[in-house]
Amino acid sequence: MILITGGAGYIGAHVALEWMVRGEEVLILDNLCNSHRSAIDRISTLAGKRPGFIYGDVRNRRLLDTLLRDYPIDAVVHCAGLKAVGESVREPLRYYDTNVGGSVVLCQAMAQAGVFRLVFSSSATVYGDCTRMPINEACATGQPTNPYGMSKLMCENVMKSVASSDPRWSIGLLRYFNPIGAHASGLLGEAPTSTPNNLLPYLLQVASGERQALSVYGQDYPTPDGTGVRDYIHVVDLALGHIRALEALRERRGVSIWNLGTGRGYSVLDVINAFEKVSGVRIPLNFEARRPGDIACCWADPQKSIDELGWQARYSLEQMLADAWRWQCNQREHEVVRQAN
Amino acid sequence: MILITGGAGYIGAHVALEWMVRGEEVLILDNLCNSHRSAIDRISTLAGKRPGFIYGDVRNRRLLDTLLRDYPIDAVVHCAGLKAVGESVREPLRYYDTNVGGSVVLCQAMAQAGVFRLVFSSSATVYGDCTRMPINEACATGQPTNPYGMSKLMCENVMKSVASSDPRWSIGLLRYFNPIGAHASGLLGEAPTSTPNNLLPYLLQVASGERQALSVYGQDYPTPDGTGVRDYIHVVDLALGHIRALEALRERRGVSIWNLGTGRGYSVLDVINAFEKVSGVRIPLNFEARRPGDIACCWADPQKSIDELGWQARYSLEQMLADAWRWQCNQREHEVVRQAN
Repeated sequence: MILITGGAGYIGAHVALEWMVRGEEVLILDNLCNSHRSAIDRISTLAGKRPGFIYGDVRNRRLLDTLLRDYPIDAVVHCAGLKAVGESVREPLRYYDTNVGGSVVLCQAMAQAGVFRLVFSSSATVYGDCTRMPINEACATGQPTNPYGMSKLMCENVMKSVASSDPRWSIGLLRYFNPIGAHASGLLGEAPTSTPNNLLPYLLQVASGERQALSVYGQDYPTPDGTGVRDYIHVVDLALGHIRALEALRERRGVSIWNLGTGRGYSVLDVINAFEKVSGVRIPLNFEARRPGDIACCWADPQKSIDELGWQARYSLEQMLADAWRWQCNQREHEVVRQAN
Repeated sequence: MILITGGAGYIGAHVALEWMVRGEEVLILDNLCNSHRSAIDRISTLAGKRPGFIYGDVRNRRLLDTLLRDYPIDAVVHCAGLKAVGESVREPLRYYDTNVGGSVVLCQAMAQAGVFRLVFSSSATVYGDCTRMPINEACATGQPTNPYGMSKLMCENVMKSVASSDPRWSIGLLRYFNPIGAHASGLLGEAPTSTPNNLLPYLLQVASGERQALSVYGQDYPTPDGTGVRDYIHVVDLALGHIRALEALRERRGVSIWNLGTGRGYSVLDVINAFEKVSGVRIPLNFEARRPGDIACCWADPQKSIDELGWQARYSLEQMLADAWRWQCNQREHEVVRQAN
């Protein structure tokens, strides 16, 4: 059985589902601070059985000790954490407390319980302002420009120290590029509880009429069309990367770092054009100045993950956008039904 | 009144004393995990009045809230933390929990109480493997080679984020070089509770017969005599740097970084020769291989502290060693008296 912290959230729920459809057991720990209990029901519907679910916080050492004692957990996927860049700038202590403090407490509890296999949700943001693309795992980590990114880098450094201190640890640091999309069923996807920070959730809210226009930050980057280029990856591909990492870590010791990206960059305008084609909806745009801290381009070299995990992203940009749009339309329907009742 | 966390420890006790001899009030918070309650008595003896003392842990949020409510604290000197490099490699989680977690909790409590002036015990170790000497504060921080150093860098980054999030903060990051020496009275000094990591406490234990010989790690560094060169600073000079920083921060906002070093480097053999001259005791040596992670040279450029704090180290190496030796001999006498009773 694996424990997934933050398993009701966007990434965690997809990891839970993919692990369960393999016939494996999952225990989800989530404090629902940025997710919904309904995700557990939806995972159950799609998997044909219920995951274990514990409502609680990863910083609660006593709770972790109890879970690790009462359930036959042999690995942990640590997705729990705060992830809004703008919020992290305003409330950095909450980010360090939750993300770094949570990781420290989790590792302490795991070590005490004798569970040493851990997969961690890291981010390409740890590469900082690295400008040589594509980025591979040997690139030095930089100085992330916001507390969210800094907290992810700190978590990685905590885990590297932990692995150096005891040879029993097997830790996979998964550096996510830009996860988007949703489950093909339309039942699982990203459900931001506040103003979205990232292109896709914002674009979806414009497409569905919740917002008037999409802000595009910067038209003067040194890219083919002047807008920023990112490596978007389907959340199901990302989840499958976690499954492969969990399996690979059975045979590995110490810390392994793997990029989870497609290896292909798309500009903001590429994404908008593809979305308009897939959805048939026109997206009104507002071009604005660059945002401080944003870089021009960022895409992965996924070769190490291909070689070591036998994993490669398979979904196209169009599939990511079609799945995201299906999810968004489903959400709207639920909303309408809820309001009608 | 200022709050000094870790105020019963080596650095904190000297800061407390120097602040009190100016007629100011001090409240000490210490969990005595690497210090002795007797330090409070000795500060009282030297200052002519008792500092406030609370036995407790800086990670205890409820305790901090109470202190900050019940005492008229207008600034905090945060010295509490673990500092043994070797131990940090073996028990990294304890270091991250205590040092980083402690800083996060302290900043949270201070913000809530409306106390925004903070002086932090950082370390030149945050410069990592910087090789251009002398080091000034504009040098990039590096990748410290052990969890102790990493935890100090994380604390600095937490505090930088905090200062960016709220313009009311005034934070001084004091990057210590190599504090040695003791109070001239022989009543306050470093009292390691386990095997010392650093040259001076080890040398003192050899001089006083507690250990047979002093290990010198590396004779083949690119330095005048082949042994490592460091910037040793008298702990009283260091404490005075804190006093000046506390005062300067009244007029500053945001984060200020100041090196606390003399600007002069001495080799291991320089220190041993000077000690033998000062004490009249011969130190048997064992030359050993370099220790992994040690660098050849490290000394400060103290110009920024001179310019902005009006502070400069004044004690010579001979004075540092004479004071350290007096402290060590006093300790021994107390030990003999204690055993005789």
